[in-house]
Amino acid sequence: MNGAQALIRTLVDAGVDVCFANPGTSEMHFVAALDDVPEMRAVLTLFEGVATGAADGYARMTGRPAATLLHLGPGLGNGLANLHNARRGKAPLLNVVGDHGRSHKRLDAPLESDIDALAGTVSRWVRRSLSPADVAADAAEAVAAISTGGIATLVLPADVSWGDGAEVASPVPGRPRPRVASPVLEDVAKALRSGEPTVLFVGGDVMTADGQLAAAQVAAGTGARLVAETFPARSARGAGLPDLHRLPYPPEMAMAALAGTKHLVLAGATAPVHFFAYPDTPGTPVPEDCTVHVLSEPGEDGVAALRELAELVAPDATPEVAEFEQPELPIGPLTPRTMAAVVGALLPEGAIVVDEALTSGVGLTELTSAGPRHDWLSLTGGAIGDGLPMALGAAVACPDRPVIGIQADGSAMYTISALWSYAREQADITTIVCDNASYAILEHELEKVGASSDGERARKLFDLGGPALDFVSLAQGMGVPATRATTAEELADQLRTALAEPGPHLIDAVLR
Amino acid sequence: MNGAQALIRTLVDAGVDVCFANPGTSEMHFVAALDDVPEMRAVLTLFEGVATGAADGYARMTGRPAATLLHLGPGLGNGLANLHNARRGKAPLLNVVGDHGRSHKRLDAPLESDIDALAGTVSRWVRRSLSPADVAADAAEAVAAISTGGIATLVLPADVSWGDGAEVASPVPGRPRPRVASPVLEDVAKALRSGEPTVLFVGGDVMTADGQLAAAQVAAGTGARLVAETFPARSARGAGLPDLHRLPYPPEMAMAALAGTKHLVLAGATAPVHFFAYPDTPGTPVPEDCTVHVLSEPGEDGVAALRELAELVAPDATPEVAEFEQPELPIGPLTPRTMAAVVGALLPEGAIVVDEALTSGVGLTELTSAGPRHDWLSLTGGAIGDGLPMALGAAVACPDRPVIGIQADGSAMYTISALWSYAREQADITTIVCDNASYAILEHELEKVGASSDGERARKLFDLGGPALDFVSLAQGMGVPATRATTAEELADQLRTALAEPGPHLIDAVLR
Repeated sequence: MNGAQALIRTLVDAGVDVCFANPGTSEMHFVAALDDVPEMRAVLTLFEGVATGAADGYARMTGRPAATLLHLGPGLGNGLANLHNARRGKAPLLNVVGDHGRSHKRLDAPLESDIDALAGTVSRWVRRSLSPADVAADAAEAVAAISTGGIATLVLPADVSWGDGAEVASPVPGRPRPRVASPVLEDVAKALRSGEPTVLFVGGDVMTADGQLAAAQVAAGTGARLVAETFPARSARGAGLPDLHRLPYPPEMAMAALAGTKHLVLAGATAPVHFFAYPDTPGTPVPEDCTVHVLSEPGEDGVAALRELAELVAPDATPEVAEFEQPELPIGPLTPRTMAAVVGALLPEGAIVVDEALTSGVGLTELTSAGPRHDWLSLTGGAIGDGLPMALGAAVACPDRPVIGIQADGSAMYTISALWSYAREQADITTIVCDNASYAILEHELEKVGASSDGERARKLFDLGGPALDFVSLAQGMGVPATRATTAEELADQLRTALAEPGPHLIDAVLR
Repeated sequence: MNGAQALIRTLVDAGVDVCFANPGTSEMHFVAALDDVPEMRAVLTLFEGVATGAADGYARMTGRPAATLLHLGPGLGNGLANLHNARRGKAPLLNVVGDHGRSHKRLDAPLESDIDALAGTVSRWVRRSLSPADVAADAAEAVAAISTGGIATLVLPADVSWGDGAEVASPVPGRPRPRVASPVLEDVAKALRSGEPTVLFVGGDVMTADGQLAAAQVAAGTGARLVAETFPARSARGAGLPDLHRLPYPPEMAMAALAGTKHLVLAGATAPVHFFAYPDTPGTPVPEDCTVHVLSEPGEDGVAALRELAELVAPDATPEVAEFEQPELPIGPLTPRTMAAVVGALLPEGAIVVDEALTSGVGLTELTSAGPRHDWLSLTGGAIGDGLPMALGAAVACPDRPVIGIQADGSAMYTISALWSYAREQADITTIVCDNASYAILEHELEKVGASSDGERARKLFDLGGPALDFVSLAQGMGVPATRATTAEELADQLRTALAEPGPHLIDAVLR
């Protein structure tokens, strides 16, 4: 048995049975070994950023890592932006990065580069396998290292992959999520009982239905306000769950949302900071005289902690939850708001919404919050170009659930080849492109940072309209059926059709 | 004057007056300052790998660096693959990477990542500007540091960009190219006079017309064989220049090409190694009993060294050069060979050919070598996806010369959004997509590495045909006029039309 065969078998035994792949020569034995281990599903992508973003989406929906297969340093480089997002969202993810055979390393061949340094910037575990005899054990350890989230990168020299003498390794048990200690619960309970304005700030792994309900029970029993982080990796939403308000993105709105707060209790979330620094603005919306209490760090068992906290401070309280309500189907011009209403009106039960709408997302969470139960995936790390790939991963993870991607136009272009993989896999994904022909977010940001120029040359760098991107053409060029909507009625018709048919669809929503 | 204004003015004064940009919020003051320094041309790209590849192509054609403008770590990450290629080709290139304001760094905001570590993997010079008062001097130093090639990365915190009190800095003189010392010339001359089989191996910066003619004079006068490196960054070609044979890519052919060589004299090139390690194959084609002599390292004045060497060992020799000859226009089926003949027959004077044809490039260099004078850009670092961006950079560098990109289909998809920038800039680029609907190179490689599987699941990872990529649709979706050729005659007609009209064109060449 060669290293590649043992590696893939070990991964499958450890529960890693999907690999988003963009291989090259140094990964050929891994590719060949796929035929020996049919339980491993390989999904081909045309660009590594699609592979890593898909693995991120897959992990968010399953809680399990997918593998990526990447070609040396440049392949890992192309995957880094979405690995950054996965790292920020604490998704478990295993990169297998092929490298030159060990005898070739010293020759400084054209594709030689510092893979280990690149991997180190995003990974909590990095190892270079040294022999076919080691590679399976390395893989088992890698999977264990990310049992509570995070990225592992296994560098796989070609000769370790092709060398004989490898054996399958048994799965290594992962570390269980640490329980939150009693003194921490007591401290938080004290804050909640203080009578002072308190915010229970939730995010990360407590955004499950159970976690949210426990948090809402605490809020109902103590008068604490419940606020969610701005971009949770995954949140359960819909009727019967709390209508969670997220901390707004714009600094002035975020500061207003937390003004007067004396205690900020973190559950699964880290303390909020603004995305960017702005002149004459503090870096965080947390008031200076506010005490921050950590109930649970990401990776701890935050849901259990919230349940215990609810027992402690609000045993008899009933969480406030949304009653079922969907917006009316709007008519007339297509705007971000009417687009959101169409999505809200037609959202199917069990949908997975992948939200990279950015500036076009106004009203989207509001108009979907009381609809059928669904999951919502956000852009966690701010590296745009994660939406299309994440939707692929979510669809591979949950083939029986409809995936709706709501995708800003500028961001779509970073990883547009994801559409080809949609068609290849016949993934049930409906992509709505928010087509405003601009990097609209940067127009706002230019003003916010205080850059005074309204010069033509600066503006030109935000304008995607010259030439206009034709997303219908782009999608069709990659085998995805596509239509264009210019009114709310057209969007509704097209979305209804797309949701009724299996396989991928793209709707170019031309927003005014 | 704020930091951004001083930075851009300093760059322009130092000769850096083109910036391939994909900015975000932290780069807003740089963008705003573009209106204050109109001499800086900003070219918008929709993906950072297009910006870095374009800067590579620009540098190859001008010998001067362009700047890139990239958005924090993820933006640099997206640019890394083509920075790898630029590094391998020794192109001078200056990255300006925006970062959080300094007060924001400690907050671990969502886009925080280790920019410096990423930059270090590709750069010969990295600096983080510490204040508006420093940034202009940093920029001047960065440009000087890459005067003989290489990548400089200037990390630009947002508050350094927006802060006042900056002043323009004067250009810093670059280090001149070192002259090659006499003992080195004497050693090489001795080898050439030894009577033993000798190969003069040329590459890098001696691939200019003058360098090649001097090398050919040495060869003519000494009986040494002249061989070029496999993938020179830029080579002058055509009638009146030596018909340089390149070392073949396949290891067995490369070994055959150098078999029996006793002295290998390197001029501008490094000693050849195979791209990849293969089982039971040595890592380099240089015979074990062959002595390697370095006439000039990349960065040294290799052309002058070759001229001096010619004076020393072959003062009266006449270099052998190609006489003008173009292939007949072929008729019939479109194959890699007939595609090459069409290109050879119609190649215009002064063309810039950007070659990322990979497996479809058979016959391409042979059938163009004796045509009109042109320049040829190759993929230097093996990171595919450089072709489309490089052509953009070459067209921006040389607006009066036709650019012809010959582009493998799989590779095109890594940076396909380059086409939008072609349309935006109305760049005079004709792209011929070698449409074989597969990662053909990997089919060959699977056999070469000795992977025995001919399993269906492995094969499926090389097949780009399900669904077929429609490059005509893709190009039109980004504003580039496009046609499809299925015979040699159609390709000839379409290429003639494309070359006659200004602006970008794409031809989807369906190869059999």
